[in-house]
Amino acid sequence: MIDITLPDGAVKKMATGSTPFDVAKSISEGFARNVISAQFNSKTVETSTPLSEDGDLTLYTWNNSEGKKAFWHSSSHVVAQALEELYPGIKLTIGPAIENGFYYDVDFGEHHVSEKDFQAIEKKALEIARGKHDFKMREVSKSDALKFYKDKSNEYKVELIENLEDGDITFCDHSSFTDLCRGGHIPNTGIIKAVKILNVAGAYWRGDENNPQLTRVYGISFPKQKELTEYLELLEEAKKRDHRKLGKELELFTFSQKVGQGLPLWLPKGAALRERLENFLKKAQKKAGYEMVVTPHIGQKDLYVTSGHYAKYGEDSFQPINTPKDDEEFLLKPMNCPHHCEIYKNSPWSYKDLPKRYAEFGTVYRYEQSGELHGLTRVRGFTQDDAHIFCTNEQLNEEFKNVIDLTLYVLGSLGFENFRAQVSVRDLDKPEKYIGDVANWEKAEHAIIEAAKEKGLDFVVETGEAAFYGPKLDFMIKDALGRNWQLGTIQVDYNLPERFDLTYKGSDNELHRPVMIHRAPFGSLERFVALLLEHTGGNFPLWLIPIQATILPVSEKFEKYAEKVLNSLENHEIRALIDNRNETVGKKIRETELKKVPFMIIVGEKEEQNNTISVRRHGGEDLGDISLEDFTNLISKEISSTLKSF
Amino acid sequence: MIDITLPDGAVKKMATGSTPFDVAKSISEGFARNVISAQFNSKTVETSTPLSEDGDLTLYTWNNSEGKKAFWHSSSHVVAQALEELYPGIKLTIGPAIENGFYYDVDFGEHHVSEKDFQAIEKKALEIARGKHDFKMREVSKSDALKFYKDKSNEYKVELIENLEDGDITFCDHSSFTDLCRGGHIPNTGIIKAVKILNVAGAYWRGDENNPQLTRVYGISFPKQKELTEYLELLEEAKKRDHRKLGKELELFTFSQKVGQGLPLWLPKGAALRERLENFLKKAQKKAGYEMVVTPHIGQKDLYVTSGHYAKYGEDSFQPINTPKDDEEFLLKPMNCPHHCEIYKNSPWSYKDLPKRYAEFGTVYRYEQSGELHGLTRVRGFTQDDAHIFCTNEQLNEEFKNVIDLTLYVLGSLGFENFRAQVSVRDLDKPEKYIGDVANWEKAEHAIIEAAKEKGLDFVVETGEAAFYGPKLDFMIKDALGRNWQLGTIQVDYNLPERFDLTYKGSDNELHRPVMIHRAPFGSLERFVALLLEHTGGNFPLWLIPIQATILPVSEKFEKYAEKVLNSLENHEIRALIDNRNETVGKKIRETELKKVPFMIIVGEKEEQNNTISVRRHGGEDLGDISLEDFTNLISKEISSTLKSF
Repeated sequence: MIDITLPDGAVKKMATGSTPFDVAKSISEGFARNVISAQFNSKTVETSTPLSEDGDLTLYTWNNSEGKKAFWHSSSHVVAQALEELYPGIKLTIGPAIENGFYYDVDFGEHHVSEKDFQAIEKKALEIARGKHDFKMREVSKSDALKFYKDKSNEYKVELIENLEDGDITFCDHSSFTDLCRGGHIPNTGIIKAVKILNVAGAYWRGDENNPQLTRVYGISFPKQKELTEYLELLEEAKKRDHRKLGKELELFTFSQKVGQGLPLWLPKGAALRERLENFLKKAQKKAGYEMVVTPHIGQKDLYVTSGHYAKYGEDSFQPINTPKDDEEFLLKPMNCPHHCEIYKNSPWSYKDLPKRYAEFGTVYRYEQSGELHGLTRVRGFTQDDAHIFCTNEQLNEEFKNVIDLTLYVLGSLGFENFRAQVSVRDLDKPEKYIGDVANWEKAEHAIIEAAKEKGLDFVVETGEAAFYGPKLDFMIKDALGRNWQLGTIQVDYNLPERFDLTYKGSDNELHRPVMIHRAPFGSLERFVALLLEHTGGNFPLWLIPIQATILPVSEKFEKYAEKVLNSLENHEIRALIDNRNETVGKKIRETELKKVPFMIIVGEKEEQNNTISVRRHGGEDLGDISLEDFTNLISKEISSTLKSF
Repeated sequence: MIDITLPDGAVKKMATGSTPFDVAKSISEGFARNVISAQFNSKTVETSTPLSEDGDLTLYTWNNSEGKKAFWHSSSHVVAQALEELYPGIKLTIGPAIENGFYYDVDFGEHHVSEKDFQAIEKKALEIARGKHDFKMREVSKSDALKFYKDKSNEYKVELIENLEDGDITFCDHSSFTDLCRGGHIPNTGIIKAVKILNVAGAYWRGDENNPQLTRVYGISFPKQKELTEYLELLEEAKKRDHRKLGKELELFTFSQKVGQGLPLWLPKGAALRERLENFLKKAQKKAGYEMVVTPHIGQKDLYVTSGHYAKYGEDSFQPINTPKDDEEFLLKPMNCPHHCEIYKNSPWSYKDLPKRYAEFGTVYRYEQSGELHGLTRVRGFTQDDAHIFCTNEQLNEEFKNVIDLTLYVLGSLGFENFRAQVSVRDLDKPEKYIGDVANWEKAEHAIIEAAKEKGLDFVVETGEAAFYGPKLDFMIKDALGRNWQLGTIQVDYNLPERFDLTYKGSDNELHRPVMIHRAPFGSLERFVALLLEHTGGNFPLWLIPIQATILPVSEKFEKYAEKVLNSLENHEIRALIDNRNETVGKKIRETELKKVPFMIIVGEKEEQNNTISVRRHGGEDLGDISLEDFTNLISKEISSTLKSF
């Protein structure tokens, strides 16, 4: 008999040679039906692998990311078989699961695969899946493995095998198909009920452009047809909401080849949006006792050697800036913290002066390879809504609670209601990984966990996920498309106060080290605006949207009245414009609708006579003929319903 | 007889050999008494130089900068004589006039001169001056000149003479003193009525640190003792108002050796002040139809090659930033214009869309030698209140008038009432110096001059002072210490639209080039704040000053009432704080006075009972016991008297 320990700590006594599937059945038949993959002693195993020793077992279903990984990896075998059957003589290389689905890199030789072939591939793959073939792992000797692929003239697999150790090579069989594989499959192909080939792209063998070019076939699969349909709908929606597309349509930002890749230029509407976000946060921060500072975008290299950022970013980032006399070296700042430490150091502080909370919309620069750049989410220059709080260990819990309040206020005001929190703490077994006093770490972890509890957060504690310099709290946001984003990190730091020799005089008249908290509710304005665009599809909260109302005079005759309406709205700080282009009212209405303007105001003879406006909401709802006063009240009421004061 | 043409165009017929002094006398005896130097055919001459040909003559008095230059240069001869008499065997090198006074670089050999010797030097110099010795120029041969200084063992003058051409060497004699000199003196030493030695400093011979170190003796002189007294008072006041000193006292900004020289760190009070300046300008700019944009602080080197800035700043400024793969090269931006041109290029424009007015508080970086850095006035990174207007030639006059309005509004709101304007136009004799179409230049110059006239500006037109790319208008501000500053340049540019190939579609459906206007009313926030600090001595306009009122409870008992008062003021957007430090009220009053807080609010028993506050104005005026309402009304009235709406 062996002892199998489950994640909840329960220990099952099982016969030696029992499989993970047997363990699942011993829990419940219903649960076992859903188990599709497993890990034993932190190693991926098949659900059919006999277990011959004591150990920790985790069983996964489709609802776990590990389960999905096995599902998609298995699906790549099935698709590979379909491709071999449809295109005889092709050479398979590697086919891993990825975040959403899987791919297989294939040397198609004389064959050419394009979108018109996808349906045939899907059909063939589903045919194979329906055969309910078990995935079966077997060990092979290196020589047998090499022979197998040499016979198939597959130099790619031969190269892979040559780099493996004899005794460590496994093949996976299902149906008539065999693949070199480390394992990690679902029990059988029958679980795969829906397969979609998403696209094909070029990819170099082993990612090296000196190697032959292969075709990467991307696919995804699901245990239910309905889930595929929903996924494709989401994909369609995500395409429509792509922030690069919306950013262009709404004239928010652009890029210029001449200025450089990954360096956004904010157009007037985007710059105004950014400023509203900044002002919104500034106002809340002021109430929370923050002070704004302004620091330069460069600093001497030595500043970042002191902070440790040079060791971290130096070689992989923008290189040092020399001066004509070559006696000084500067760096573009990758972080604002060193500058804020220097501001803190400008004065001596007493415990009575703390906490000091320095905030800055600080633009930082970090080099990213051009292939990694993506719209506003991966850029080379971005503005952090950065702040650093310098406080005593005793103030940590209170400050953390304040930052949680601020973060929740920010996320709530922008329509992100769906989130969970994660507290990352030390791995107590690896004390060598962390700097700073153990007693302080304990205090800090306790302070964060207590703060999260007191604020009623739904949170998990992740051991070993803390940074080397301190524990942290992250917010994980789920957007309207169900995707997860990390936002609003709050991070404790014992490292920089040490490196910059920051001090304050305690009530004991001795010098002490302050603790530092890094925090940025938006993270960066660039990434946040991208996220907000995709979350809202461009239908920003009313308080934030660039244009709140478009005024459409039904003819030139009513432009004067339109001007009067505009003036009145502007006096109420409502952002409006008049569309007096020489187009039909119908066309203007359609275009205003496309531009996601929340309100359309139509003015003609009746409206001018009654001193009213005719209002339609974005999406079509007709609010009819109302007075200007009713309209401005309506807007301020709607704004105050999302944008509460902090 | 020769024809002497005076600056007003009048022609005097004079006998050949007449001197400038003779010409002055022919105008009026009174005028002649005040003439101290002259230029003939654009060359500096003595007032006693015989004129032997026709030509243009300008006569200068102490009130001209050329007159002051001759006065101070002549004074340096007198001081040099005094030094030689007091310290026999010293070696004189060079002694020019500078902006305020003059200096002489001297090798004092075994002698040592310090502040305690200044009075003796001044006394000796005045003694010499009272001798009313004429300054007399004479030509000497190179060999005689060399012999004169070899006999005196003065290797410095020998080196200077060796670099001169024979026939081009002149000495100047006065009293028993002789100096190598090009000329440009006042008639005689008697005009010098007051001499002050200001300080001594080390200076290398010819500014090269490999050469021997000399002592630079700085001095200044005046035609009246009263003027010296006034100058010294001004100097004292300027020291008190030094923005570096005030910036520290008022906690506005700091520098850190670690971040780097010339890179200011704005402390909370300074950052808030900056923000108020920005918001003030943003508001006015919004009304004037500007749109804000945001652009990165770097750009590809190629962007600045296109703009021409690389050719201008490249080698002498911060060097290019390389990337890890070495395939891209970036530069810190020295100017915002190239980025704004790329924003303009992002869309096609019709003449109906123009003017486009893009504004940005853009931080730019330009390398300055560390010796040139000075507080906030000479820095390596600064934020321009930049804007670029893209318009048609026809719109130039209107746009110029709008920019003049905005600039005058900005200067007026900040208490700069004393200024004059200068329009810089082409030199028509040197058409090769300018780029762009002649017809456009004519239009632009006309547009600017008309705009200046229509706006009733007190302005002069300076020929040949235009930039190669366009004419401009500058405002010259006189500050409270009587010093001149150039502020609010408005510049027409035909160059960048050409280099960036900017276009718009005209009413003729053809593509045309827009004109560009650069303008920045503040110039840079850093320099402007420095200037404002020195102009106001830290007594900023009420709307701008960091803290408008300090509340002093007379004892701990009244802190609660003080809090109530503070809340009420904050609700009226008055920036106030409570000074509840454990100090005597007397000490707090003195310190508040030093911090230049405009209003001090004292609250005690009587005030709490009557629900009033006792108010004192900065400088001592007692406003007595008043209601909070009266106080907030007083403040808003005072603010609106300087800060009118645009």
